[in-house]
Amino acid sequence: MKATVIVTLKPTVLDPQGMTIQRSLGSLGLDDITDVRQGKIFDVRLKNGSREQVERLAKDVLTNPVIEEYRIIWE
Amino acid sequence: MKATVIVTLKPTVLDPQGMTIQRSLGSLGLDDITDVRQGKIFDVRLKNGSREQVERLAKDVLTNPVIEEYRIIWE
Repeated sequence: MKATVIVTLKPTVLDPQGMTIQRSLGSLGLDDITDVRQGKIFDVRLKNGSREQVERLAKDVLTNPVIEEYRIIWE
Repeated sequence: MKATVIVTLKPTVLDPQGMTIQRSLGSLGLDDITDVRQGKIFDVRLKNGSREQVERLAKDVLTNPVIEEYRIIWE
């Protein structure tokens, strides 16, 4: 069984990496792109279909709850 | 219009970050998780629905074609 954990900065948190990418786009002629925000993705493989362990992994290990939020996509 | 660009290491490329996470899971009691691989995700907002610019962003700016691959999810 597979799961994908996506960790992104909360919308209210400043994203300097995304802003840097965004700023460089004008000189590359990609000026239709108005906003870029970066996050992390984790492809997880698990046995026994124990979803609760993936929830714990996402919540306790992969996410900093002060500035980040996560969502899980099950496959 | 929104798009999500997901950049991951090619399956044949070693992922030290994922392996480090994976190794720490046993001591946390998360031993049903057999594999973790890390990647990057970019949430992109664009005007005029110019998909070609997002393709170019993903291919030329966000991905290192030697070791990484990308996929785009349109919303």
